[in-house]
Formats: sequence, structure tokens, C-alpha cells
Amino acid sequence: MTAEIITVGDEILIGQIVDTNSSFIAKELDKIGIAVHQITAVEDERNHILSTLEAAHQRADVVIITGGLGPTKDDLTKDCLCEYFDDELVLNEEVLSHIKLLFEKYIDTPFSELNRQQAFLPASADVLFNRYGTAAGMWFEKEGKVYVSLPGVPFEMKALMEEQVLPKLQESFKRPFIVHKTVITYGMGESSLAEKLEFWEENLPDYIKLAYLPNLGKVRLRLTGRGTNLEQLEDTINKLVTSLHSIIGEIIVGYEDENSIEVQIGHLLASEGRSLATAESFTGGRIGSLLASPPGASNYYKGTVVSYATSVKQDVLEIPEKLIQKHSVVSSQVAEAMARNVKRIFKTDFAISTTGNAGPTKGDSEEEIGTVFIGIATPAGVYSKKFVLGNHREKVIGKAVNKSMELLLEEVFKNSEKAG
Amino acid sequence: MTAEIITVGDEILIGQIVDTNSSFIAKELDKIGIAVHQITAVEDERNHILSTLEAAHQRADVVIITGGLGPTKDDLTKDCLCEYFDDELVLNEEVLSHIKLLFEKYIDTPFSELNRQQAFLPASADVLFNRYGTAAGMWFEKEGKVYVSLPGVPFEMKALMEEQVLPKLQESFKRPFIVHKTVITYGMGESSLAEKLEFWEENLPDYIKLAYLPNLGKVRLRLTGRGTNLEQLEDTINKLVTSLHSIIGEIIVGYEDENSIEVQIGHLLASEGRSLATAESFTGGRIGSLLASPPGASNYYKGTVVSYATSVKQDVLEIPEKLIQKHSVVSSQVAEAMARNVKRIFKTDFAISTTGNAGPTKGDSEEEIGTVFIGIATPAGVYSKKFVLGNHREKVIGKAVNKSMELLLEEVFKNSEKAG
Repeated sequence: MTAEIITVGDEILIGQIVDTNSSFIAKELDKIGIAVHQITAVEDERNHILSTLEAAHQRADVVIITGGLGPTKDDLTKDCLCEYFDDELVLNEEVLSHIKLLFEKYIDTPFSELNRQQAFLPASADVLFNRYGTAAGMWFEKEGKVYVSLPGVPFEMKALMEEQVLPKLQESFKRPFIVHKTVITYGMGESSLAEKLEFWEENLPDYIKLAYLPNLGKVRLRLTGRGTNLEQLEDTINKLVTSLHSIIGEIIVGYEDENSIEVQIGHLLASEGRSLATAESFTGGRIGSLLASPPGASNYYKGTVVSYATSVKQDVLEIPEKLIQKHSVVSSQVAEAMARNVKRIFKTDFAISTTGNAGPTKGDSEEEIGTVFIGIATPAGVYSKKFVLGNHREKVIGKAVNKSMELLLEEVFKNSEKAG
Repeated sequence: MTAEIITVGDEILIGQIVDTNSSFIAKELDKIGIAVHQITAVEDERNHILSTLEAAHQRADVVIITGGLGPTKDDLTKDCLCEYFDDELVLNEEVLSHIKLLFEKYIDTPFSELNRQQAFLPASADVLFNRYGTAAGMWFEKEGKVYVSLPGVPFEMKALMEEQVLPKLQESFKRPFIVHKTVITYGMGESSLAEKLEFWEENLPDYIKLAYLPNLGKVRLRLTGRGTNLEQLEDTINKLVTSLHSIIGEIIVGYEDENSIEVQIGHLLASEGRSLATAESFTGGRIGSLLASPPGASNYYKGTVVSYATSVKQDVLEIPEKLIQKHSVVSSQVAEAMARNVKRIFKTDFAISTTGNAGPTKGDSEEEIGTVFIGIATPAGVYSKKFVLGNHREKVIGKAVNKSMELLLEEVFKNSEKAG
């Protein structure tokens, strides 16, 4: 049971936009047991689209195509699909009335012939009604294989995937189960780890795949199993993890939750009615954006102060000038004061702060480039940690954000009733 | 002169990460006149990698491959390239000493046999020395076509592209010029616009391509020309834009700068030594993150206060409780007070604020979902604008961020000496 994703549109190929649609679709298909073997981005060009459809047909059971469904000449996907399936366009009255309604309600230009053409759809396609836009999705079947065409506008594509495509795929196909389990290790390089695991790795069953994912100080080991018996699959993977413990138990620091770290923090805070604020310096709001991203985050995440300038630390975060003069702005004292004060000012239960030199220049402090302090304020008190994270700006910021999120999860958990 | 990009790695295919590498590479190639015709993401699987290399060979002159160069068993790219080019691995002493040095300086596990293997590289490849990591890049030539293999770690890939691959491609190939010009229109739907431009579009020279890019209220028209004579190409495109003016002049609001809007704002502020702060509510720090992203942003961007909770607006942004009670938190009065106060507190020349209901629920206000206010404080005064942006949360936030950046650019320009 394999799938491919095809995105159509020059925007991706000239680097004007990043292709987030494919990533979303791949993740959702993976969750329901459909493995994506290839993602292909092609330009708005007839022959290239047709040959890509044919190549995908040779390899995959399901092909999801996004983009190229607009009303203008550069949008070719519908015509290409029509040609590929040797089909013809027929007027869909329901889609037509929907497009007319959208024009009446939201669009202040008159409904035109080109809009009318969007209601003409291939006769053999099941129409996937798009309540957010004028381009309908389409579902085709050919020789036991499924082709789905979706608009490229992300929120229209997402709604169609969630409400129609995924349920329909689940009905249409018997799918294997895909189980991922990711073990987090800390303190051993990727290659040393691989040497230590050589024998264990060679003896993995052939339906289990192992990937090494090194990332800023940690190596995550992702085990992926595919099979028709979920219980047996989970049992095998659990046994493999147990055997891993007997080989490298001392460096295993945890498991990656299905949920991202910001969602885990959110769940813990929301379940106990606790709240959180942040005070960021060189991380520029990245920790806050992460914390704010889960749906419902406004219930526990109260906000952030991003203080690039030292004067903002004084004026907004009320860090005494004396403290900064005595210890410098990049210091454990300032990190702790930032966390303590933002917790008090925002009236929250937890707060996290960052201050540091990410480079390329030293900025307002004399500390070595790459030196950062993370401050944490919890109901139990305030402390800070110092890290020296190298001399590559992007890397320093990335590592500091990761570290902050980890410390925060640890503290939120430690201070929760569950841990108690 | 065409290129393809191949990314190797299961992370992308299971949706664990978004492929930003391809977007970066595509943009850089486009800048030097190399058009990317396809981007393909494939799993870590030998046959699939080999058949993808062969398929790319049929279509493209340049193939850039990223990922799969790590030291562990799941990293197959180097072996596949070796097989594809019928080559053998030989030890590169320079790379070996570099890897050893990295281990001594930064990595606290011992150098191992697997690390040593990273210094074995295909005999026919030109080695692209990677100063940030242990995986060297490789440059192959076959039948007049170029293959470049780069590590998947973004900052290592970027450094190799900028410092070695792009200059080498520029030396190796005669490339056509690629000129993009994007005209921004406002107030006419994509399809009405296309009808109006039908005759004009049909008479475009065949080396000029037109794309319609509708995005949250605006339609951008991107003209792309390819040719060997830059002057002539630019001249043709300028004439086409002039003729566009005679057809739809009344809805043309400007041209897209090569630079992103945040970079344009940054250039204006930096050149006049002026500064900026933000106060965000439902946009959750997204405006601040954008403004903070250009290199050197800390010179003019002082920071942000993200206030999800009404209480934070009172305590941190010093918005009087009375004002909120009288006008509600989603109001022009509160938006203006937020902008005025954050400008004062952060001691900046400009400030922008957002307050609104993005949905799905009404939150702290009675305003209809989709209603937002953007406040702007400039050296000349304070005002706000109201927008009603629909009922789709993601869309409301996206539109409001776009609107805010546009208003800000307008105001920064109006208040600059250049506009003088």
C-alpha cells in the first residue's frame, strides 16, 4: 500500500514558496498506514505533468496531486487529468451554484465565464466538494489505483483531506499498520552508537526499519514497523526497545511522544489549569511561537516579551540596570530575573527566559559567542542553566530553543500532580 | 539549461520534516539562470535512489542531491552514487584530518571506524570540503551533465551551495538569463482579470511565461522571461508591463520587490537609524518573527509583546481597564493604545499592533469572528484600521499579518526622507 504525492506549480520550482502541503499530506497518510514513497514537484507544463502521472502509476496505489486547479491559463491540472483518463468535462450544477454563492458573498467582482468553467469537471471523477473555495477536488480510479486532485491553497487542501479524502481512503483500502517508535539518546555520537548497535541492527526483522536522526546533541533512533497485526507489531517493537536498553540503556533519555513537545507541554498545563509566559532575547520569539501554535494554546499561554535591546530588558522586564552592569546582560542572574519578572508581570505559574550571544558579533555582552543562559521560573522557584553552543548563529538559536522546550517540559512535568 | 533536485530521506516522506532545502536550492539556481524542472523526494532505498538518478539524467543538465550522507546504515546516497557512476571509494586524507579535528574540538565521543568511513569518497568525484560537518559534498560529471551531492543538514548544505556549488556552476555553464517581474493588482478576481487579459496573454512572445498568483485579496501577475540577451529581455518585459498598464492600470498597485517585505522595511529603517516594536494579540508573535528574521534586524527591531490574555494588555502594555470595558478589547481604541504604548515603552520610532477575533470562538470580545484592528504608531501620529477577514482562523491570521506588513511598509516609507 504505497502512495505518491505530486505538486504542480512553478512557485515551488523557483523557490517562491516552501512546499508545506506535501509534508501535511505525507504525515496524514502515514497515520492511516499508507506509506509515501515519493514526492514530486513539477512545473505547470502539460507533457511533464502527464509523464509524472504515468510514472507514479507504475509505482504507487494512491496518487495525490495538489495545485493547478485555478481558473486561469497557467492552471493545467484538470485538463491533464482529463487527457490522462481519456475523459471529458461536464457541468456540475451543485459546484456551479456554490461558486456563484461564493461570488455573491465574498467576492466583489462579477461572476465570469472563467469561473463558470471551474464548475466543469471530468465526467468519471467523484467530485470532492470544496466549501472554502471555487476549485473542487476530484477522485479518480483506474486499474485499482486511486488518483486524488486537490487545490493548492493550503487550508482548502487540508479541509478536503481531513473531511473527505482520508475517510474515503480508509474505506477503500485494506491498509497495514505503521508503527513508529523513536528512542531519544544523549551523549554518544551517531557513528559510535551505530558501531555499538551493529549486531542488534543486523538482526532486526525485515519489516522493521531503523533510522538514525542526529539533531543538535541528541541522536534519535526511529524504529518503523509495518504489518497487518497491530498487537504483534507493537509487541515486537517494545521487545526491540527493551533489548536496546540492555545495550545502550545508560544513554537513553526518553521516547519521542507522538505529540510534539509544545503539545505535550500544553496538555500538562491545560489539564491542571496552569499558565505560562516567556521572555526571550536572542531566540527572537521562536519559543513563544512554538508554545502558541497548538490549538487552544491561549488557554494556558499568556504571551511573551521579546527584548532584543538591553533597554527593553530594563524598561519592560524591569531588570535593574545595576544587575546588568554587575553581571552583564548575558548572565545567569539576568536570565533568572527575566524569568522571575515575566512570571510575575504576566501572572503565570511558569516562565522561561533566554539571554545569550548567538553571534556573529558579541552584541551587548562580553561573553564568548555561543554562550547562552536559559532561566526557568516554576511554582517551586527559579534557576538558570548555562550552555555553550558553538559559533554558528542558526545552530546556536536552534539548540537553545530545543533546550528550552526540553527544560520546560521537564519542569512542567515535575511540578504537576501526575509526577507528585 | 535545466536542473532537478533530489532529496533523499524518509523524514520528508513521513512528514516528520518540511523540505526547506529544495526551496533554498531552487531559488539560488533560478537566480543564476538555471531553471529547476522537478524536485523529487525519495526514501532511503537503493533501487529507488538509482532509478531516480537515471530518470533525472534523461531530463536535466544539473542534478543536485541532498541528504543520506551520514555515517550510519540508513545513509545510502554515497554508495548509490558510487554504483551509479561505476566508481570506487578511496580515502581522502584531507577530509579525514578535518573529521578528526571536529571530533577533538566539538564531539565528546571517540573517533570511530564509521567516522573514518566518511572520509572514503568516490575516486571520480571532486570533493566539496564541508567546514561545518563530517559529510563532504561531491561533484560528478557524466556525459556533459553535472551531479552534486550535498549533506541534508540545512546550514551545511547552504554553506556548500553558496561557497562552492554556485560559483562552480557559473563557471561551468553558459546560462541564459532569467528575469522575473511581478505586478501586484488589487480589487479584481483572478478570473475576471484573466478574461480582461485574454488577448494580451495570447500574444505574449513564447519566451515569456505568465502566472496568476492569487493570495488573500490580491492577484500578483508574475512574468518570467528567459533569454541570452539580458538587456533585450528586460526591455521586452518592461514594454509588456507598460501595455498591461493601458489595459488594467486602475488596479495595478505596485510591483513586487526582489526583496521580501520585511527586508524592505528593514532597509528603510536601518538607513535612517529608526526603530520599531510590535504588540500582538491574535497574531501570536508572527509579525515580530517576520520582522526579526532579516540579518541585522536587531539594529532596528527592538522587540515585541505578545498578549494573548486581556490582563497582559492591562499589565504589560498599560492599557487602562476602563478603555477595554468601554470599547471592548477588540476595538480601534485598544489597537491604537497598544501601538502608542509599545512605541513609548520600547522607545521606538514606529510600532504596530493587532487585536482581533480570529475564531473559532469569540474569546474576550463580542465582535464578530474575523474582525481585526491593526494599530500603527509613527513619528507623525497614531491611527488604526478595521478589517473583516472571514471565518477561517488560519486565513484570518494570515491576512492580518500580510495587511500589517503592508501598512507598516507604507508608513515607514511615507515617514522616510526618501518620500520627503
